[in-house]
Formats: sequence, C-alpha cells, structure tokens
Amino acid sequence: MSVKVAIMGATGAVGAELLSLLAERNFPIGSLRLLASKRSAGSSLAFRGESIKVEELTHNSFEGMDLVLASAGGSISAEFAPSAVKAGAVVVENTSKFRMTEGVPLVVPEINAHRIKDHRGIIANPNCSTIIMALPVFPLHQAFGVKRVHACTYQAASGAGARAMDELKLETAAVLEGRDFQPTVIPFPYAFNVFPHNAPWLPDLGYNEEELKMVKETAKIFETESVKVHATCVRVPVLRAHSEAINVEFEREVSVAEAMDVLRSAPGVQILEDPSANRWPMPLDASGKDPVLVGRMRKDKSQANTLDFWVVGDQIRKGAALNAVQIAELLFA
Amino acid sequence: MSVKVAIMGATGAVGAELLSLLAERNFPIGSLRLLASKRSAGSSLAFRGESIKVEELTHNSFEGMDLVLASAGGSISAEFAPSAVKAGAVVVENTSKFRMTEGVPLVVPEINAHRIKDHRGIIANPNCSTIIMALPVFPLHQAFGVKRVHACTYQAASGAGARAMDELKLETAAVLEGRDFQPTVIPFPYAFNVFPHNAPWLPDLGYNEEELKMVKETAKIFETESVKVHATCVRVPVLRAHSEAINVEFEREVSVAEAMDVLRSAPGVQILEDPSANRWPMPLDASGKDPVLVGRMRKDKSQANTLDFWVVGDQIRKGAALNAVQIAELLFA
Repeated sequence: MSVKVAIMGATGAVGAELLSLLAERNFPIGSLRLLASKRSAGSSLAFRGESIKVEELTHNSFEGMDLVLASAGGSISAEFAPSAVKAGAVVVENTSKFRMTEGVPLVVPEINAHRIKDHRGIIANPNCSTIIMALPVFPLHQAFGVKRVHACTYQAASGAGARAMDELKLETAAVLEGRDFQPTVIPFPYAFNVFPHNAPWLPDLGYNEEELKMVKETAKIFETESVKVHATCVRVPVLRAHSEAINVEFEREVSVAEAMDVLRSAPGVQILEDPSANRWPMPLDASGKDPVLVGRMRKDKSQANTLDFWVVGDQIRKGAALNAVQIAELLFA
Repeated sequence: MSVKVAIMGATGAVGAELLSLLAERNFPIGSLRLLASKRSAGSSLAFRGESIKVEELTHNSFEGMDLVLASAGGSISAEFAPSAVKAGAVVVENTSKFRMTEGVPLVVPEINAHRIKDHRGIIANPNCSTIIMALPVFPLHQAFGVKRVHACTYQAASGAGARAMDELKLETAAVLEGRDFQPTVIPFPYAFNVFPHNAPWLPDLGYNEEELKMVKETAKIFETESVKVHATCVRVPVLRAHSEAINVEFEREVSVAEAMDVLRSAPGVQILEDPSANRWPMPLDASGKDPVLVGRMRKDKSQANTLDFWVVGDQIRKGAALNAVQIAELLFA
C-alpha cells in the first residue's frame, strides 16, 4: 500500500505535528503534497530528511490524491474539502466545519472506529477538548452507564494555533519586562491571566461554541442523547496541553477501584499519578505524548453515584493530529 | 476610638495588603506594631508616609495591643495567637489553624457578621477560595435554596505567598530564556503549567486540604449541612486573583434573570460582563480590587434547577487582608 497524501494547512501547529507523526508512525506514503495559503507557499518543510516545497492551496491541488489531512481553518475547509472529495480523495477534517453534518462520521478511533466506513468522502476529527474528555468517559459509560458529565477545562494556547503559542510567549516576556504588548491573535490579555474561552458566545444558549462542541460532539460520538454533558471552557496560559476536571454521575454506585480498573485497560488512556507525592497529570507531562493522562479518581461526596477525576492531553497531538493520523491508518491499513 | 494594632507576618504578601488597606480605609490606629520572624526583624515598612521598624515576634509582643491581625502561617499562629489572647487582644486569624475550632467564629462580614460577638479572643478569616465562592453563593442560597455547589478553581500563586509569586515570575523568565530553574517554594513546575492544588492530599477522603476547606468552612459559615459542596482546586500560572467556575443546583427552578437580580444587590459582589463582546471577569480585572467579580450566569442544560457562573476575586485582598480588616472594623466600629 502506498498512499498519496496532501496536507492542507501544512505550516500550522497541527500541520507540523501531522508531518512528525506520519514519519514517526511509518505511514505508507507514496507521495506527499504540502498545501498552505499563498502567503506560506514557496517555503519548504522537512519530512524524513527531505525538503518538501509548500504549494499554494487551490481547487486543483487534489488531483490524484488518496488522502487529504485538512487543518487549515473552517472556512478554508468549507471551500476546499468538496474539491478534494470530487477529485477522489478522502478528507480527514480537523476543523469544526463538517463535524455535525449528516453523513460525516465523527471519529475517535478508540471509541467509534466502526463509523469510518460510513463516510462519503469526509471524516471529521472531533474538537480537542471533546476527544480528551471522551477517551476516559466512554469506557466508563460502557462499563457503568453515565448519566451526566460536567467538565471544567484548562485549555492551552495551542488550541488557537501556532501564532497564539508564540504570542503567549512574547506577551509573557513583555509583562515580565514591564513592556506594553498588544495581542493580535488572542483577544484578551493572556500572560498570567485566564479567561472563559474566546469561542463565540451563544447568548440564547448560554454556552460558547467550544462548550457546545463538547455537548453535541459527545452525543454524536457516543451515539446517545442519554449522556448529558455540561462544560465550562477556560483558557489558561499553558502552551500545548489541555487539562480537564471531570465530574461524572453514573446510573449506579461505582467505586474508585472499579473505575480505575476500567481506565487501566482503556485504549488511548494512561494512568499517571503518585498519590503519596500528591502528584497528578500536568500539561508538561502530556506535551508531545500520545496518551491522554488520567489520575486523581475520587468520590464526589456531595452527590450520589458520582466520581471526579483529572485528565490531561496534548491538544495538538491526540486532540488533533494524532487522532487524524489514526483515522488515516484505519482507512488505509 | 483609637486601636492599638499588631500585624503578625507583616512582611508577607497579606501583610503588605493589610498595611495598605488600614491606611486606605482610615482604620482608627492608635499605634501600629509590625511583627515578623527574626529573619525579617530590623527591616522597615512604610505606613502612611512613616517608616515603621519590623520587630521580632515573641510571646511578649502583644502587651497592650487591642487587635492582632495574624497572617504568619498556621504553626506560628498556633504558637503565638494564644499569647495575644492572654494579653487581652482580639486576634483576627488568617491561617487555617483555628477556623474549625469550636468557639472561634469563622466570618465573612457580608454573610455572618453577627457571629463576631461570639468570639473568645480569636476570629478566623476563611480560606480565600471559600470566601470568593461564598460571597455570591450565600445570597443565592438565601433567595432560592441551594442543594449543591460544585466549584472548579483556577488559583493564583499569591495563595502560596509573596515568595511563590516571585518564583513564578523568575521561573517563567527562565523557561522563556531556555534556562534551567529549580523551584523551592512551589513543588511542581509552574511556568506555563497547571496542577491540582499542592495542599496535602487526604487519601481516605479523596480531597486535598484546600478542597476540604471549601467543603467544611462553607458549612460553618452558612450554618447548615444542607448545602453540599464539592471542589476541584487547581493552581494556574496567575499572580494574584483566583477564578472559580461555579455550578449550583437549587431546590427549585431559578432563572438567569432571577439569579442576576440577587447578585446585583449582593454585598461584596460586582457584576462584570459584556456578553456581546464575550467579556467576563478575569484575574487581571480583579487584582487589587475589593469586590468579587461575577458574570456568565447561564442554565446548565444537563441537569434540572442548575445554574452555572464564573467568579474572580483578589486572593490577597478579599480572599485574605480585606476580609480581616472588615472584621476589625466591625470589632472596633
């Protein structure tokens, strides 16, 4: 098998991670085309020691391609993904554009790989916060039945792209040196500050779009409306891994030991904790790592049948690029 | 009225804030004695344009004092507060040492000022995260009846003192410059990182001490066991204000408008939001400010009778020094 691959948005944070994962995981690449905006076209990126020229994304970019890994923003996907499909490629789509579209599978391979075969040209990668929450919650739901999930997130700059990560560093340096700084990527002061996620606020719902993604995408991935989800999404000045405080109400009493037993064998999940040292997963532990790190499972004593735990996952990796490459592996395995 | 005041822990972050608040609020000071460890004794601090020498804290430091504002750590309070009481002073105690002690009122003046008169020499200031949560939750409880509060915190370095704030800045500068840094105050990497609060972990309970304070102190302040509290406490790389995502289940259906009406007239609470700009309270808004800032009230659609909101308060100010000075004002008004 040899796959002709195009990457849309090759010069972004997720694009860079896609390149490194395709190499690291020995994806059977026949040819590799790197696509980006006119601004980035002409530059070169390294792949397996070769230098590959970045081409401008056009509607003719997809001729002969088998697979398009798309991570260039929702409006660009809306415009170009249909052309890729028309050219005969399968698009693994990392933006929110097609996630809730009928006929587009929304896939976390550890949870619903069986949905991949239903695609009509596009397979969507869920939102990063959704993936990181869903990986430990789904096996718990299968084992015990989950009634309600309440997640509070601690989200990294990487969710807003490589430029947001750079801006956080530049802004933090400016604050430390007492210099003024005008952010252009993130609309609020970010250095030594936190703020509810800047995704558009939906006044009629009382959720922002990031929170609503966690609600709706989870229902689509789990294939049930019976697991209710509530989320508060917050950006914290961290570079590239999201943390989530997750509170889960089950159908019945579940012990900490039972839940941990399930998570110990859950795919994509790794337990990381040393309770005697008060040591639980941290963004710096998860950065650059594949598994979502889980720990600090405990009884919520304020409510029956409720457990509470802490999960941290690399937003760029499992939250985006790794999940997409896993889907591609299943498509072309 | 003229009050002879001693400050225990005058050289710390809360000590500095106590000094500025006593001046700013024209507290009727007859004399002011600044007490600290031997290490800090001999230095001077400014108060209303005067330079006051810091004296070493001893058991004889309290002779003739009316009021001791204590913020020097739990073990120091355990040792010296009884001597202050014996000398005839009233101690407003900022550590956790006496908060749950029978006969020690635990006071947030906006909530339970009536308890101050019950003191036997010591009045305790609650934990900062507890105060910031309790200020908006108590009036909602009075108005509608609260069954359960679930708080996820985003806590600043100031909770661990002035040295932790300095360390966060030094560590962040080191990380930005690619230098190694060995933290000595905070036990985990803190720059561009978050971690569940480093207060001691209580394995049998599955809470850390910070979380347990929020549970137990709230019951004492509200004078009821009927309001169940669950908390996940997390440190974020912010300098001096705590944020909290608060989810409240009521006895009955409560609308967003009803809840906001209550909070608009709640003492110590200020609404800060511009929903059309997706703008909600942030730590940088609250730093150095008296009121606890509240916004983003919304229905939790995953559960009946449940609202969710966001609150930010200055940990050093209302979370510690301001609350203590307010108690002192009530004592000596």
